[in-house]
Amino acid sequence: MRIAYDCQGGDNAPEAIVRGALKAAEEFNCTPLFYGDAENIKKIEGVDPDCVIHCSESIEGDESPTMAIRKKKDSAIVRSFFDLKEGRVDGVVSAGSTGALLAGGMFIVKRQEGVERAALPVILNIGTQTKLLLDVGANMDASPEVLLSFAKMGIEYLSNVEGIKDPSVGLLNVGTEKGKGNRQVKEAYELFEEALPNFYGNVEARDVLFHGSDVIVCDGFAGNVMLKSMEGVIGYVQHGMKAAISREDCTPEMRAWVGNFAKETLGALDYNRYGGVPLLGLEKPVFKAHGSSDEAAVLSATRALIKMIKE
Amino acid sequence: MRIAYDCQGGDNAPEAIVRGALKAAEEFNCTPLFYGDAENIKKIEGVDPDCVIHCSESIEGDESPTMAIRKKKDSAIVRSFFDLKEGRVDGVVSAGSTGALLAGGMFIVKRQEGVERAALPVILNIGTQTKLLLDVGANMDASPEVLLSFAKMGIEYLSNVEGIKDPSVGLLNVGTEKGKGNRQVKEAYELFEEALPNFYGNVEARDVLFHGSDVIVCDGFAGNVMLKSMEGVIGYVQHGMKAAISREDCTPEMRAWVGNFAKETLGALDYNRYGGVPLLGLEKPVFKAHGSSDEAAVLSATRALIKMIKE
Repeated sequence: MRIAYDCQGGDNAPEAIVRGALKAAEEFNCTPLFYGDAENIKKIEGVDPDCVIHCSESIEGDESPTMAIRKKKDSAIVRSFFDLKEGRVDGVVSAGSTGALLAGGMFIVKRQEGVERAALPVILNIGTQTKLLLDVGANMDASPEVLLSFAKMGIEYLSNVEGIKDPSVGLLNVGTEKGKGNRQVKEAYELFEEALPNFYGNVEARDVLFHGSDVIVCDGFAGNVMLKSMEGVIGYVQHGMKAAISREDCTPEMRAWVGNFAKETLGALDYNRYGGVPLLGLEKPVFKAHGSSDEAAVLSATRALIKMIKE
Repeated sequence: MRIAYDCQGGDNAPEAIVRGALKAAEEFNCTPLFYGDAENIKKIEGVDPDCVIHCSESIEGDESPTMAIRKKKDSAIVRSFFDLKEGRVDGVVSAGSTGALLAGGMFIVKRQEGVERAALPVILNIGTQTKLLLDVGANMDASPEVLLSFAKMGIEYLSNVEGIKDPSVGLLNVGTEKGKGNRQVKEAYELFEEALPNFYGNVEARDVLFHGSDVIVCDGFAGNVMLKSMEGVIGYVQHGMKAAISREDCTPEMRAWVGNFAKETLGALDYNRYGGVPLLGLEKPVFKAHGSSDEAAVLSATRALIKMIKE
């Protein structure tokens, strides 16, 4: 199995990417290929020079994704995506710009047959449940039919990669009753009811963390609002805790308790713990590791990618 | 000043509504009129029987709001709204069904000139800032023009009722840059930029609690998702705290600390503290007290209503 690593994207590139990839090679018995600045990559201990593909250009986060993909043919994303398309590698891990990965996925790797739009999920591990919410930012406007295709992608990922049997699918909405919501979700409800044997019904945003379906479907606008609202409250609580433990009357035991609580309870809501997210709906497997990925994150990104490849 | 109280709506009706109204009458020197079951209301100490308007029907939370408003002519909401429209009272306080209040507002009280849709805001007091988010559930689909009218209603309320000078207005979006978002908010951005001298730009959901504009505008679908996502995380944190303080190794001091933290920090996010919300965009003032309103909540609802009447 040959895995391409974008050694240009992410805060800790290329070192953390390369080291994580080397660890993954050992653990999963796969061959890593390194795309990026050859001179820098070759300096890192353990790198086989024959596995380095020099790229003279790199895509930055503030560029227009579509323009960057079209113009920067010698960037790690574009070259690894062409190699993926043409079968020279089996999957790509990148901590680069999400926008560029989505654009490259659509234009180079191409969508699966029958898929109109690729989607970006987040995966939450809460207690013993693994939940997949999508889309969280790739598609701002989505028709009911597109929402249905998201549902199918989510089911496929959870059952094939996470091993969840018959995942249930819910529709993000403002109330649980049928007939609630805007035009888009009302129509989607009808479609889901007809097409999905394991349709859970509507799920309110406040219930996403507690119970309800394994997959939660929404368009990228609503998904982004949901995720960032949650982040906002988490940040607010963390901020409040920091202020409270810095008061003089706070004992070391309390400080330890608060630190532990923040780590365990708030930490469980951190979707970055999953190592990143798969790009769903593409012909071949691409895994977006998060921007601040360290070695361990690259390792877990590779683990998920390999499951996608084997699927 | 004559204020109508719906003594049928809310978990603690009629007692808490009537007692809160009597307190308000004393404090603000206004005349309360009680709409509901006359026999029950007259039993409550301090009620002037001449101020009781008997209503033989009542609107329940699970009814279709529009149908209920059309059919139940002798309900507290319908009768008080007609009295408001015809000038026999100056404002209405109700803890009843939001849907019925909105429907009654549109059909009986009528919208202000130039207003296409009434809106439901929430008001958050965070630190020293008062923020108004709208719409949070009255309008599932809203055109860019309707969003602009929400912006204007929000400005009017904050400046006239809360005394905030030149409130700034932000647009809820997935990113701060111009050009982000779905079709609706992209177009709204253009409109806002042109029409609002104090336009703040886009506001991401994670920043709503921290900084940014005084008014935050979105459609009722996105607003509801935002609010309920926040509620979900707050509930999750409260649940985690309860579990943590019930462990054996938790000392009484820690329990007290956690209780205090939950009350102060999480409590600040509780928009119910405001006593309820005004219905914006109507010709005459209506204040929706929250369903679980107690005496104090009715008192603060009346305080806000009187400010709206004087405005």
